[in-house]
Amino acid sequence: MLSMPHELRIRIPTWLSDSISTFDTDYPSIQSRMAFTISLAKQNIEHGSGGPFGAAIFDMDTHQLIAVGVNVVVNSCCSMAHAEMVAISMAQQRLKVFDLASTPQRFELVTSCEPCAMCFGAIPWSGIKHLVCAARDEDARAIGFDEGPKMSDWRQALKQRGISVETDICRQQAIDVLQQYAVNGGAIYNAGDAKREDQR
Amino acid sequence: MLSMPHELRIRIPTWLSDSISTFDTDYPSIQSRMAFTISLAKQNIEHGSGGPFGAAIFDMDTHQLIAVGVNVVVNSCCSMAHAEMVAISMAQQRLKVFDLASTPQRFELVTSCEPCAMCFGAIPWSGIKHLVCAARDEDARAIGFDEGPKMSDWRQALKQRGISVETDICRQQAIDVLQQYAVNGGAIYNAGDAKREDQR
Repeated sequence: MLSMPHELRIRIPTWLSDSISTFDTDYPSIQSRMAFTISLAKQNIEHGSGGPFGAAIFDMDTHQLIAVGVNVVVNSCCSMAHAEMVAISMAQQRLKVFDLASTPQRFELVTSCEPCAMCFGAIPWSGIKHLVCAARDEDARAIGFDEGPKMSDWRQALKQRGISVETDICRQQAIDVLQQYAVNGGAIYNAGDAKREDQR
Repeated sequence: MLSMPHELRIRIPTWLSDSISTFDTDYPSIQSRMAFTISLAKQNIEHGSGGPFGAAIFDMDTHQLIAVGVNVVVNSCCSMAHAEMVAISMAQQRLKVFDLASTPQRFELVTSCEPCAMCFGAIPWSGIKHLVCAARDEDARAIGFDEGPKMSDWRQALKQRGISVETDICRQQAIDVLQQYAVNGGAIYNAGDAKREDQR
């Protein structure tokens, strides 16, 4: 029992830490915010630091970049380290709140792919007010990833909680990154089970 | 941008770290495993370290305790730090895998309350093979917590992925802890929104 860990640490990859000072602070158009987010996914696979998924949190009114995330499941030994979860957590750490809706600002989660069942369930607790997605569930599934047991009317379920949803923004660019990952033989993890339980 | 954090750290409370060496290593009956898990929830509220929820991971065959978790959302400034997520993460950190199903052992998640929408979505990615719950969704809702947008047939969705589910184990003891939290005026967070978005 003495070897039981007392803390979880999830770090963003070194290339991403090192890049933060070079990022623009404002991204006025949704296309520029999504292009930035997809570039995180692309760099994540090019650096071999995780799966082909990126996410970022922006201020909805000033369009200022607040926090970034990429998939670091394998390197962190943590199945919850999806890009969306990392970006949400980093924003909450930055603002020192567990609920982004408790601040005077309104925040948007921009993600290179529609959220899986876990990230979908995490969104109402995060305090974000708007969700923007590029690739669809089916695009992730097309290269072997699984979205988990997600309700078919997930967009409506978020809207009912006051969270608006925008999909298909720069979808083809996000698909290109997913396909690049697959062509390069990137790990489609959790694919070994009898029942397909691939993971994002 | 220079203030953007590079890592997330979620620590279990000090009282829990300090207690680990005193825990039994094996818990042969499901009642003993659940009583232990509910005791974590109870101690968490008595120490004021978080919400009235506890969770633990056990080896399904030896019934050895592998990892523990309690709700540390508020103190960690992290909306995903639910008891189940903490326990799963600590088990993965201990075994140095992102997928508990990738080891030769089979693992069970024991939780003092049925999982919310996020924790439900996280379970298939975790690699656990069995889920045991005490209090029901409705028991958490009875004191003002919300379970999020969870599909009504969530048990069946897990079973279809090879994860068995056992409910109502020591339910009344878990309800007693939820009620103790409510009577003592424990924070029911995220309750401030126009649409009720309470959080576990």
